Amino acid sequence: MRIRIIHGPNLNLLGLREPDLYGHDNLDELNKKIQDLAGSLGVEVEIFQSNSEGEIVDLIHQCVGHADALVINPAAYTHYSIAIRDAVSTIRLPVVEVHLSNIHAREEFRHRSVVAPVACGQIAGFGSASYLLGLRAAKQLVEEARR
Amino acid sequence: MRIRIIHGPNLNLLGLREPDLYGHDNLDELNKKIQDLAGSLGVEVEIFQSNSEGEIVDLIHQCVGHADALVINPAAYTHYSIAIRDAVSTIRLPVVEVHLSNIHAREEFRHRSVVAPVACGQIAGFGSASYLLGLRAAKQLVEEARR
Amino acid sequence: MRIRIIHGPNLNLLGLREPDLYGHDNLDELNKKIQDLAGSLGVEVEIFQSNSEGEIVDLIHQCVGHADALVINPAAYTHYSIAIRDAVSTIRLPVVEVHLSNIHAREEFRHRSVVAPVACGQIAGFGSASYLLGLRAAKQLVEEARR
Amino acid sequence: MRIRIIHGPNLNLLGLREPDLYGHDNLDELNKKIQDLAGSLGVEVEIFQSNSEGEIVDLIHQCVGHADALVINPAAYTHYSIAIRDAVSTIRLPVVEVHLSNIHAREEFRHRSVVAPVACGQIAGFGSASYLLGLRAAKQLVEEARR
Amino acid sequence: MRIRIIHGPNLNLLGLREPDLYGHDNLDELNKKIQDLAGSLGVEVEIFQSNSEGEIVDLIHQCVGHADALVINPAAYTHYSIAIRDAVSTIRLPVVEVHLSNIHAREEFRHRSVVAPVACGQIAGFGSASYLLGLRAAKQLVEEARR
Amino acid sequence: MRIRIIHGPNLNLLGLREPDLYGHDNLDELNKKIQDLAGSLGVEVEIFQSNSEGEIVDLIHQCVGHADALVINPAAYTHYSIAIRDAVSTIRLPVVEVHLSNIHAREEFRHRSVVAPVACGQIAGFGSASYLLGLRAAKQLVEEARR
Amino acid sequence: MRIRIIHGPNLNLLGLREPDLYGHDNLDELNKKIQDLAGSLGVEVEIFQSNSEGEIVDLIHQCVGHADALVINPAAYTHYSIAIRDAVSTIRLPVVEVHLSNIHAREEFRHRSVVAPVACGQIAGFGSASYLLGLRAAKQLVEEARR
Amino acid sequence: MRIRIIHGPNLNLLGLREPDLYGHDNLDELNKKIQDLAGSLGVEVEIFQSNSEGEIVDLIHQCVGHADALVINPAAYTHYSIAIRDAVSTIRLPVVEVHLSNIHAREEFRHRSVVAPVACGQIAGFGSASYLLGLRAAKQLVEEARR
Amino acid sequence: MRIRIIHGPNLNLLGLREPDLYGHDNLDELNKKIQDLAGSLGVEVEIFQSNSEGEIVDLIHQCVGHADALVINPAAYTHYSIAIRDAVSTIRLPVVEVHLSNIHAREEFRHRSVVAPVACGQIAGFGSASYLLGLRAAKQLVEEARR
Amino acid sequence: MRIRIIHGPNLNLLGLREPDLYGHDNLDELNKKIQDLAGSLGVEVEIFQSNSEGEIVDLIHQCVGHADALVINPAAYTHYSIAIRDAVSTIRLPVVEVHLSNIHAREEFRHRSVVAPVACGQIAGFGSASYLLGLRAAKQLVEEARR
Amino acid sequence: MRIRIIHGPNLNLLGLREPDLYGHDNLDELNKKIQDLAGSLGVEVEIFQSNSEGEIVDLIHQCVGHADALVINPAAYTHYSIAIRDAVSTIRLPVVEVHLSNIHAREEFRHRSVVAPVACGQIAGFGSASYLLGLRAAKQLVEEARR
Amino acid sequence: MRIRIIHGPNLNLLGLREPDLYGHDNLDELNKKIQDLAGSLGVEVEIFQSNSEGEIVDLIHQCVGHADALVINPAAYTHYSIAIRDAVSTIRLPVVEVHLSNIHAREEFRHRSVVAPVACGQIAGFGSASYLLGLRAAKQLVEEARR
Repeated sequence: MRIRIIHGPNLNLLGLREPDLYGHDNLDELNKKIQDLAGSLGVEVEIFQSNSEGEIVDLIHQCVGHADALVINPAAYTHYSIAIRDAVSTIRLPVVEVHLSNIHAREEFRHRSVVAPVACGQIAGFGSASYLLGLRAAKQLVEEARR
Repeated sequence: MRIRIIHGPNLNLLGLREPDLYGHDNLDELNKKIQDLAGSLGVEVEIFQSNSEGEIVDLIHQCVGHADALVINPAAYTHYSIAIRDAVSTIRLPVVEVHLSNIHAREEFRHRSVVAPVACGQIAGFGSASYLLGLRAAKQLVEEARR
Repeated sequence: MRIRIIHGPNLNLLGLREPDLYGHDNLDELNKKIQDLAGSLGVEVEIFQSNSEGEIVDLIHQCVGHADALVINPAAYTHYSIAIRDAVSTIRLPVVEVHLSNIHAREEFRHRSVVAPVACGQIAGFGSASYLLGLRAAKQLVEEARR
Repeated sequence: MRIRIIHGPNLNLLGLREPDLYGHDNLDELNKKIQDLAGSLGVEVEIFQSNSEGEIVDLIHQCVGHADALVINPAAYTHYSIAIRDAVSTIRLPVVEVHLSNIHAREEFRHRSVVAPVACGQIAGFGSASYLLGLRAAKQLVEEARR
Repeated sequence: MRIRIIHGPNLNLLGLREPDLYGHDNLDELNKKIQDLAGSLGVEVEIFQSNSEGEIVDLIHQCVGHADALVINPAAYTHYSIAIRDAVSTIRLPVVEVHLSNIHAREEFRHRSVVAPVACGQIAGFGSASYLLGLRAAKQLVEEARR
Repeated sequence: MRIRIIHGPNLNLLGLREPDLYGHDNLDELNKKIQDLAGSLGVEVEIFQSNSEGEIVDLIHQCVGHADALVINPAAYTHYSIAIRDAVSTIRLPVVEVHLSNIHAREEFRHRSVVAPVACGQIAGFGSASYLLGLRAAKQLVEEARR
Repeated sequence: MRIRIIHGPNLNLLGLREPDLYGHDNLDELNKKIQDLAGSLGVEVEIFQSNSEGEIVDLIHQCVGHADALVINPAAYTHYSIAIRDAVSTIRLPVVEVHLSNIHAREEFRHRSVVAPVACGQIAGFGSASYLLGLRAAKQLVEEARR
Repeated sequence: MRIRIIHGPNLNLLGLREPDLYGHDNLDELNKKIQDLAGSLGVEVEIFQSNSEGEIVDLIHQCVGHADALVINPAAYTHYSIAIRDAVSTIRLPVVEVHLSNIHAREEFRHRSVVAPVACGQIAGFGSASYLLGLRAAKQLVEEARR
Repeated sequence: MRIRIIHGPNLNLLGLREPDLYGHDNLDELNKKIQDLAGSLGVEVEIFQSNSEGEIVDLIHQCVGHADALVINPAAYTHYSIAIRDAVSTIRLPVVEVHLSNIHAREEFRHRSVVAPVACGQIAGFGSASYLLGLRAAKQLVEEARR
Repeated sequence: MRIRIIHGPNLNLLGLREPDLYGHDNLDELNKKIQDLAGSLGVEVEIFQSNSEGEIVDLIHQCVGHADALVINPAAYTHYSIAIRDAVSTIRLPVVEVHLSNIHAREEFRHRSVVAPVACGQIAGFGSASYLLGLRAAKQLVEEARR
Repeated sequence: MRIRIIHGPNLNLLGLREPDLYGHDNLDELNKKIQDLAGSLGVEVEIFQSNSEGEIVDLIHQCVGHADALVINPAAYTHYSIAIRDAVSTIRLPVVEVHLSNIHAREEFRHRSVVAPVACGQIAGFGSASYLLGLRAAKQLVEEARR
Repeated sequence: MRIRIIHGPNLNLLGLREPDLYGHDNLDELNKKIQDLAGSLGVEVEIFQSNSEGEIVDLIHQCVGHADALVINPAAYTHYSIAIRDAVSTIRLPVVEVHLSNIHAREEFRHRSVVAPVACGQIAGFGSASYLLGLRAAKQLVEEARR
């Protein structure tokens, strides 16, 4: 089972940005944790980060034929990128939306996700663990779909 | 470690209600899955269900001194019960909000949670697995808080 | 044919409360009229009143297996109780929403019913007669469903 | 006792239009049911249909001196015709608003009636039976006014 | 193939009204262009104009059995006539909504069409050519439906 | 100088309708006052009343070539008839909007006029005198335009 | 009969400010026209101008015992001065609101008057003539009140 | 004179919950202060606390015949419980709404009280003293009503 | 202890203005009651009234060094004067906002206070007693601040 | 005459994505149809597709000096890309906005186009034919501009 | 070249009020900096402060004939004073709006300026430097206008 | 001291685009002015332009370690790019937002900046001079931060 992980904009500076909200891990440390869990779950992961909406659309498209599920943190694009929403709904694979911070506890405009209505589900607020829970969720969704 | 699980209104009829949205498990089957995972995680769980807002407030209050964390599915109350929100913010324990269905993909009025801003995080859309992921999240939050 | 009648909050004080809006009957007098019509229609009715949202949810749930239809005046809860809405949509029986007063002619916030979208229909503004018309409507819905 | 019945726009094509919402009766069949009940209630009914807002205003005005009550389904005009609203409030007779479908369960813009605040009450969602219940309601309102 | 063309209110004064927005053609010149294209496409067209909402509803109803498709410019009624919307959705034929001016570039209230959601598509902003493109579109929709 | 006066819907029942708001004059008495003032001002007036939006559009169109100005009370249509608004802006004559009652002191939805932005001005709240002031205003606008 | 005239803020610079909207008269010329009409109507007028909301409130209060009616152009304060609104409703005299320009044809925020709901009526859009019509209206309101 | 005091949801945990907002007193200490002032004012007080909306409705109903006035802190229910609002308006006694914290200085959703429009008045922001001032206010309202 | 009392606009006409809402006391009588209570509480009060927003800002500023607390009824300015709000937040003294009428039971626009979020608390609806309760509240706030 | 065609995000996966909405053609088949019509119209077309907002801005800029008109389907960017809107308004060429699906019949957020107000017109809802009609419209706009 | 500087309400207490937002300078120190820069730029400045909206309107009017440009910090009035807005648009001189704090980073209601749409530009967030940059901007605007 | 300047989308075509709004300078001429002022201020500037949101995010990130401050004109992205907002808040350097045109005097949607709340301040409306003032502001912010 192959699961793609996509980190959205500004996550390349993770650790620099408001550590109270996002934790002290940098992106490499986060990715290490994801790889470790993937190993123990017997799942193969490919991890990408991009600041570009268009590139993220491309990365989502590439899942078709190359991945069984997608775990995505659209970061800032969560709140307005209908292009990413449409990409997610086009690929017809299990998609899990994750967020490091609890977006529902922040500015009003971060409460709304335009991606969530076309994803399978959303996990927000658990720091690095959001990704780890998301990976477990994605794995289960693939297994359910295969049944 | 003790973690309280609270199921909100109408979940006593789980399995009867729109199975496409909520799955075919009834509440006993769901609770069994939670107990099983709790066992394997070495966590003690107490599970409650109530249709009454006031009773749920009481059940939340009782966590003080009796539980290390709370996993709650406020169900319909998610969207308007400021009483439950205030109870959650009063007890000062890790609280994880979970939902069987992807509330962000349903009617507009279900997108907003008045509880989420005072919870640690939210997990929605994975059916029974939302609770299982929530239990894992709660356990980790307790462990982090103890460090 | 058995039809359950549920009176929502504050209706126990009927007759005391703004008689211009709600009429001069008290609850016993209203129930007597309902029983009389039920008798002449050959329908068995069970009548309940509760001020508690959770209890009303329970009373709705109990319809499953015990009643063929429900006539409910959710009163104040009409305008915000998603818990009652979800209970109504869970039981999968004909449900008729009734109101003594014309809620569409009162304060703006009383124009919207969160229950109506999952009920079969709504009857409002005819005083005691709203219940009597609601009983007739419920009876016919049961008969149609049986055809 | 004379009661006028007015069918609003597009009801002349009843039976053709979305039968799931409006039922399979055509307008003649519906009118036959109304006439039958009127006969058994000892009420005289006059039935009109018009697609024109201005004509409907005229038909409402003519009630003065010619009818004791009005049962009206303003159909599409329900949601914006202040002209019909003003006509209803001018004639100072009992007016019952009826709808075949449950307007509260349809598109958001159909939830609001600009006529209902000046009518005595509203009955919606029972198909042909909405008119029959409306006729009973109108008769009772006339009798109450005569007392 | 017969296609009905309906011009909505104030289009009888075309050429008089704000020529910058609507062009210098009067209605006869516009109709001549439509007839010419219809001739070259082998389509029979019937053209109507009315300032009355009720008459336009009637003209739409008459399509049933008399036309294969409808090209309609509801003009001012575009923005509020739910009666016309319901007529369009009742006849179950291909309907193309056209506008001389680019309604999306004018006052805010002209951006919204209540008819468009039940039409097949909308063409706006090309002056007389909007009708000509609309005729082509209608012809193709009929051909596709016949396949 | 010829000035057309148009009374909108429900004004044919003037005197019957809420006399506190609209005064005790009936339409003939109002028209008599208008004719009297017109006589003393040396102005010729033609007075029309219609309950039909389409007819009112026609009556406005007929001003072209037949009247120097228009005094119109669009009544209920004031608040939603974009068809009448477009007719008013098409004829390119001085147009004065008048109202018997003070629409700004009534229900929220009566505060907004969709016609006023394309009229020269609005006079509201003076009962019959609104028309008389409107006639004076129209006369002056014609005289100014002629200078 | 004594009628007070109050000009609100920025009207002291009349003639300087956007002449297309407000005309070429300066305030003295406008006041001369008002005095002339007052003379011919046999009415005594006192005219004030102030840029200060508090002073305008004082000027309104002074009407009690010193004037039979008030004609006021609250200018910019029209749209937000609840203090002026409350002053107008306190003095219990006929009050006519006038505007040089057609406020309903300008920026959205100028469409709403917070004063109009407590005035007798509003006249807007006729330049200097708005005051002259307002004076006539005020005179008639006083005469009606005396009857 | 008997005055009932009702504490709404979560006030049983007073002292535990955000002391900066609500003060350090627990509920017993607050009640002691109320009893002390009542004693010195010669007023008899009965004090209740409930987390249940339905129970609070019952407690309000019981005032009829048992209390001369009500001082209520509806806490979280302040902002949405139309059931409590209707109970307050039904009992026809002087009702004073009190809040420990200044609800107008907190989250937007706490600024609006659905109860206040049917209470006599509201006192908010003075900690325990809000209740003491409320008790004084209630006493005076009873005395005024008795005059 | 010195406490300043500021009465906002139109309160100079107290007793004249809608006595049902504001009571029959005139301003002198109200001030007498305040002085009497101040005497019995051992507090020195200075009382001001102004219709001018700028003057009220000045009066608030003067508290610095001259008063220990402020009791203010901003009247109409309550709902829009950010200048008064900023003055209140600048002086860093205990400020109590009072209202004679229950502003939450009146027009929608009177429900919102722009001053309340920077005051310590608000007391509304008790007529003259609102000031008396406000004086007590202010006294206590000063005493608490001194502790 | 050279006309540029730009396909926005996700259109590269055409045929994969919801065929009920977008049809079964893939992008090559669509482009073939466009090329064929261009050939028969004697127009040269250049066709581009991009998922990147910035690239689409660049592609629009390049029209200056290289194309006579632009036919663009901004897809998801239609609803929020002010950057694309500004690019369209900068190039001062005829621009036609096209959509495969009827965006006015889909989710509320798809009804609004931020590009349309600066385009010449919009064509939506005709599948592949939307592009073909758009090509005809663009050709005519160029011809008109050349006159 | 003469440039007028106007400080709005509460700025007389600068230095006292929230120094984190407004800096530690008092008004004299700020004015000294402005005078110093004016000297070095060869510009004559006149500086005024007022808490009164009406006085500020007067101060703006006085610019006509006495100043070449205006630098104004309308402070609290920024957000609602249409009177000041109208004064600014009346004088037809270059006007620069300045703010000490970044109003776009504060409460929602401070984001909107009703003055900015009629000013030349806005500078906000740089403390004292906002005025100094504003002075430079005003000087350049005068020089450009003179060219 | 090094200051980065970033020009957002469509600014590469400066001079072509609506010169009334943006001036006649092209981008090179604007950059020349910036370089000239930088030289005279003893500041080193690096200037970038991009039409791509992702690239702008990258350019902002690169400031870390390479620049002391940022002057950015996010152009169209100002109004919706939360990605740019988050990049600005991540880098923790002084950031000045500038606009050529007065965005507060243009379309409603241009009044709101999603970037401004995390920038130090905003300068809008002075054409090229906005950048020059922005450069001065940035220099001062760096100097203050160094103190």
